[in-house]
Amino acid sequence: MRVIAPAEITAIVNVGDDLVLHGLHVSPDLDTVTYTVAGAIDRDRGWGLAGETWQAMEALRRYPQATTWFNLGDRDLATHLYRTDRLRAGAPLSAVTAEITAAWGLSCTVLPASDDEVRTRVTVPDGEIDFQEYFVHRKHDVAVSSVRFDGADAASPAPGVLDALTNAERLVIAPSNPIVSIAPVLAIPGIRAAVEERRARCVAVSPIVAGAALKGPADRLLRELGHDSSVVGIARLYAPLAATLVVDEADGDRAREVEAEGMRCVVAPTIMRDPDAAAALARTVLAA
Amino acid sequence: MRVIAPAEITAIVNVGDDLVLHGLHVSPDLDTVTYTVAGAIDRDRGWGLAGETWQAMEALRRYPQATTWFNLGDRDLATHLYRTDRLRAGAPLSAVTAEITAAWGLSCTVLPASDDEVRTRVTVPDGEIDFQEYFVHRKHDVAVSSVRFDGADAASPAPGVLDALTNAERLVIAPSNPIVSIAPVLAIPGIRAAVEERRARCVAVSPIVAGAALKGPADRLLRELGHDSSVVGIARLYAPLAATLVVDEADGDRAREVEAEGMRCVVAPTIMRDPDAAAALARTVLAA
Repeated sequence: MRVIAPAEITAIVNVGDDLVLHGLHVSPDLDTVTYTVAGAIDRDRGWGLAGETWQAMEALRRYPQATTWFNLGDRDLATHLYRTDRLRAGAPLSAVTAEITAAWGLSCTVLPASDDEVRTRVTVPDGEIDFQEYFVHRKHDVAVSSVRFDGADAASPAPGVLDALTNAERLVIAPSNPIVSIAPVLAIPGIRAAVEERRARCVAVSPIVAGAALKGPADRLLRELGHDSSVVGIARLYAPLAATLVVDEADGDRAREVEAEGMRCVVAPTIMRDPDAAAALARTVLAA
Repeated sequence: MRVIAPAEITAIVNVGDDLVLHGLHVSPDLDTVTYTVAGAIDRDRGWGLAGETWQAMEALRRYPQATTWFNLGDRDLATHLYRTDRLRAGAPLSAVTAEITAAWGLSCTVLPASDDEVRTRVTVPDGEIDFQEYFVHRKHDVAVSSVRFDGADAASPAPGVLDALTNAERLVIAPSNPIVSIAPVLAIPGIRAAVEERRARCVAVSPIVAGAALKGPADRLLRELGHDSSVVGIARLYAPLAATLVVDEADGDRAREVEAEGMRCVVAPTIMRDPDAAAALARTVLAA
């Protein structure tokens, strides 16, 4: 936002993490983007609102059979109440998302990858489970043998998604989890092809630094699903999609291997410790 | 509770006021009974929890199109989240209600009149609207030309309801609104007949005192729907159901008219200003 006018930015966001909880439609990735851009996110937690209260969750624990492993802050609940209300009234998720981002004062565009239901499902030793069951309830501390995106085949890109991919001056694949955050976006028919079409304009930032994910289970998932948990493994995944891979300085010694996979390799600091570091990375990506 | 062991009490509660709000199943009458018996209700407001916080509602107002006319406290929200979760899992409302009342430490039995969907619908000058739209959103400040209970014909009494009516030593028709709180219970096939069968054991308490409702729109509704807003009007409605009508001392001069409608009339203080007054009324009713 400090590097480019917000109005020129469109974020295409994974909806495979969405869940219906207590009857409420929760879109964790959309909300994280919205709250982050609004400057309202809890930076320590990495999700939810800063200064949040937890009266509803505390009260929920009164009921022995209540589902309490997914925390919902009181003010965050309002977003889920609103989204659920509007979806029930027939508004598509993309329209509701536009209403929510407008209410938070965002001037960038935030698009769900699809208005249709796409659900990331993860196979673990005892069977296939929902993504949040894996990610939150089991704290991604379980072996994964496969991941699929239920509903993706029949889903369509949300209005504006293909236009944005086709017309953007620069496409960026953020340093998100390639298996469960980027792949469910690409799984929606038309999106992968639209990115491949713009490969020359597309820059990916490696989510793997020195062989490990900065947070979350990307490294473990890559290994368990037969990929290399390194910038080289990332390059193999992203080479058809992006001409350039930005890797952290910690991986500068592997630049030649990345280039051998068919991507130009840019070495730069990629760890977004603070807004200055994020702005510097944005400049790197735009210049790439 | 001070007059009779709670375990001997069964409350059969209206579900016609229930609504789905933001995707949550809200049962205002069941919750009011539960919170009241638990001693957790906000006495000034008459609904919701004492010491409640309102972070979610405040946050909801950020969204211009949000439905904000029905207030949901943060801790109260937990009850709706829980109920919705359990209903979605296939539990009937009566089972969920038992779980909720147990969690609140109630030893009396609270039964929804039905596990099936019954919805009170009210015709006002601009059309038919949901009960809460009438009661809360329009603050019952609108003329009503008819009331019906959508779904009642196809509904069944919840498990335990007919048993309780058949076996109770004493049936009490509480001083609730006869049009929109008692009638939707009686509209469920089998319930009215079960009460009529026990008429000799049934005592009603008049919700009308000196021609007016103590709170809510009972008096206005009675008039608008062609009834007499008086203890005599109440007697005409309840004579087939209850052998006895308890009327307030303010209506002592109308006891003969009540008896002319075929009900024994007991004159006593009926205004439950505090727990002592409520206990005294309970003794009156049991002795009647």
